Amino acid sequence: MSTAIEQLHERMAELSDLGHASQLLAWDQQTMMPRRGAPSRAESLATLERISHDMFTSAKTGRLIERAAAELDGVPADSDAACLIRVVRRRWEKARRVPGDLAAELARAASLAQESWVAARAASDFAAFRPYLEHNFELARRYVECFDSFDRAYDVLLDDFDPGTHTAEVGALFDELKRELIPVIATLSEHADRVDSSKLHGRFAVGRQRRLALDVVEMMGFDRSGWRIDDAVHPFAAGFGAEDVRITTRWDPHYFPSGLFGAMHECGHGLYDAGIDPSLQRTPLAHAESLALHESQSRLWENMVGRGRPFCRVLAAKLPRRFGDAASGLDQDTLYRAFNRVEPSFIRTEADEATYGLHIVLRFELEQALVEGRVTVAELPGAWNQRFHEYLGLDVVDDADGVLQDVHWAGGLIGYFPTYALGNLIAGQLWERAHLDVPDLDAQISAGEFGVLREWLRENVHRHGAKFSSRDLLQRVVGRPIEVRPFTSYLKRKLGDVYRIAL
Amino acid sequence: MSTAIEQLHERMAELSDLGHASQLLAWDQQTMMPRRGAPSRAESLATLERISHDMFTSAKTGRLIERAAAELDGVPADSDAACLIRVVRRRWEKARRVPGDLAAELARAASLAQESWVAARAASDFAAFRPYLEHNFELARRYVECFDSFDRAYDVLLDDFDPGTHTAEVGALFDELKRELIPVIATLSEHADRVDSSKLHGRFAVGRQRRLALDVVEMMGFDRSGWRIDDAVHPFAAGFGAEDVRITTRWDPHYFPSGLFGAMHECGHGLYDAGIDPSLQRTPLAHAESLALHESQSRLWENMVGRGRPFCRVLAAKLPRRFGDAASGLDQDTLYRAFNRVEPSFIRTEADEATYGLHIVLRFELEQALVEGRVTVAELPGAWNQRFHEYLGLDVVDDADGVLQDVHWAGGLIGYFPTYALGNLIAGQLWERAHLDVPDLDAQISAGEFGVLREWLRENVHRHGAKFSSRDLLQRVVGRPIEVRPFTSYLKRKLGDVYRIAL
Repeated sequence: MSTAIEQLHERMAELSDLGHASQLLAWDQQTMMPRRGAPSRAESLATLERISHDMFTSAKTGRLIERAAAELDGVPADSDAACLIRVVRRRWEKARRVPGDLAAELARAASLAQESWVAARAASDFAAFRPYLEHNFELARRYVECFDSFDRAYDVLLDDFDPGTHTAEVGALFDELKRELIPVIATLSEHADRVDSSKLHGRFAVGRQRRLALDVVEMMGFDRSGWRIDDAVHPFAAGFGAEDVRITTRWDPHYFPSGLFGAMHECGHGLYDAGIDPSLQRTPLAHAESLALHESQSRLWENMVGRGRPFCRVLAAKLPRRFGDAASGLDQDTLYRAFNRVEPSFIRTEADEATYGLHIVLRFELEQALVEGRVTVAELPGAWNQRFHEYLGLDVVDDADGVLQDVHWAGGLIGYFPTYALGNLIAGQLWERAHLDVPDLDAQISAGEFGVLREWLRENVHRHGAKFSSRDLLQRVVGRPIEVRPFTSYLKRKLGDVYRIAL
Repeated sequence: MSTAIEQLHERMAELSDLGHASQLLAWDQQTMMPRRGAPSRAESLATLERISHDMFTSAKTGRLIERAAAELDGVPADSDAACLIRVVRRRWEKARRVPGDLAAELARAASLAQESWVAARAASDFAAFRPYLEHNFELARRYVECFDSFDRAYDVLLDDFDPGTHTAEVGALFDELKRELIPVIATLSEHADRVDSSKLHGRFAVGRQRRLALDVVEMMGFDRSGWRIDDAVHPFAAGFGAEDVRITTRWDPHYFPSGLFGAMHECGHGLYDAGIDPSLQRTPLAHAESLALHESQSRLWENMVGRGRPFCRVLAAKLPRRFGDAASGLDQDTLYRAFNRVEPSFIRTEADEATYGLHIVLRFELEQALVEGRVTVAELPGAWNQRFHEYLGLDVVDDADGVLQDVHWAGGLIGYFPTYALGNLIAGQLWERAHLDVPDLDAQISAGEFGVLREWLRENVHRHGAKFSSRDLLQRVVGRPIEVRPFTSYLKRKLGDVYRIAL
């Protein structure tokens, strides 16, 4: 007879198998599927989701959890088994509280709203999108009502994307971040003429960009026996276990940093999936649960490595081979300074490291106000534009460049945005710690050796998968909760260097 | 309240969704998946299979079938609803007879045997493969024992690949086919010098071959909004509904017919999937059940169209643009004659249209003898080689070119081979009928117009999906059972023309 822990493991393994199938269907939809396949794909995904949901939320799963928990007796809290039971129980209890009707309506509304959003954004027509968005926020409030014992309604939503993190804590961090960033951006705007990024623009054949990006991600740890890289309109990473990791990027033939940093960003995510301990595979622990932790990995590789001076040395040496004459003038210093130019702009995904945080703070504040009823959807464009001016000094004239730019709210992902900026903060803390543990880290990177950093991240972050919350993991690695200071210190040091100014 | 027919439909739709997911996982495994992803992929496929099997064979499905059947009352036997119930009931009754243990062992043994076969074929070492093959045939006999009411044990196996077709009928057809083909092949061998195919060999860049194949399949009905074409080591076609059809081919840089005819063959399969009536989508009727019918479509397009004189005119006109100087001398007549050169050879998949049938007859006779215990696995190589000499006049010196060449028996696909030759016979009957219905068919093809043929096939074959057995469908279209004469008449006429000889 197998133990209850083994039985729970087996049930979770089946759910993991179904999850991999769903993820492959989604990956294929965004990279390979012919256009007309969409309706049939939606049916397959919905059926897989329904079957998985029923299996997971069944009373049988609940009984297995309780019997498995009873077997734990004396097992350390950070053991695989104890973490598995804790994570599964938390998710099961959460999922059981949401009636099937509401879960189905959330999925259906998100799908319809996304369709409406695509058209509304193209026409910059917020009014057309407004009823869908109202419905999504209404459903989010009904979702929140399924739970009790929380301080703020927004806590419930946030918890889906970064378990255990609370609104009050994020609010305090973001207030500090705002206080730090706003004056830095103002100062740099006064010295905008000190940094020239024009040499990054030119003609860079996509085939050549592809080879360059492959050079770089292969240095990071991408290998063809277990990874793929493909094109996607909206880049993402997907992993079906640690042995089949897929990343995507998009290419701009006139601006190579777009494809290169996209690839590095997604490869950062991919390294997380690839680094999760084999003992956790086919369990829910094999998928990092904290999106903030996941995002810390992509941003660490994209920004701290990719836009750092040591890496620019490596890149400058590679560019002539890949780009020929188009690489002329792109030496280490030029790349480093151009990559770190700060300039307020309208679109979040194109923002530099300094202004990016303000794009997120604004969304966090607004979605919280919407959930708590302090702002209505009708008032949203006005609130957006007023706050955008306050934080970034720009006047939004077109909702497509403002409140309509992101798919998240259309897709029902309310509470997701903060994880992007939390990811930056965590990356700052890990980056600082990695430099203490590996004193010659910059020299290693400068020599094109990324293995030490990758292994440090695997040892301290990746291998644990979803065993720990972002809070608990940080406590283990840096001995502190999430903090703003390491990130802003890093950023001010770098931007001061780039702009040759004291910040 | 929904009717039982609607409920059955809904349950089958969910199973169809899961089937599409499994098929996408399999497609991806053969076209996209990084090598190391295989173990995780196997788990996902096994879990999907187990869940589907349990859903399908459940008592609940059985009750739905009976309640739905009771609602039919007066509905015509060829209506969608009546066909659905008939097909589902037949499959359900068959699946219920096979114990779960045996089904699992069949899958497990097939997987292990395939692994052994890959190594054994590479080393041409039948002895190493023998125990696996013995186990597979032993399991096939146990599978047969799950059933009663059949004339010959082999009937049970054949029925899985072409429902309703019996061993005795196939035996009679194949005896006739053998009597027709052997003397034709002997005659042509005496005049081997009349046909030269050397111009098909040369240097044909894969990129150029790819564009040529795309030109041709687009004429057949491939369109990018609902189809894909990719590379695969073992070409195949897959369809996830009629709106997402995927074909594959492989390229030989020194011999362009390989990639081109592979693409036309798989596109023939794909057109079947794409042509199934929308009303049958998300039911088991949306996947042709008769592999003989399916194969008739691929072979009709590959051989009767692709190797026919009218198409060679179209192709000859296209070659210079795609191949430049490498196309010199490849005029219509040269292509037509070279494509139809007959020459006994060892490998089935490389055989010409005349010798191909004998490769199949030999396999059909041997697998039947193995199932019925008239030949043992130990005796198989000897029996193979003796019969090969008898039918094709060649002495097998290497089992890799003989009994070890195909994956089918390793994969537990016993009873599958005959459908290839039955497909040729059915294609012969359809081709004859299409010419009666569309008198200027050759002129249409010669002008590059394939639409009339495609629509004739859709109307008469594709749209019905799995509604009819191969026997019933042929009865509807040509008013006859499967026959040898139309195929051999077509072939003798063509080969007589090519070899300038009376056959």
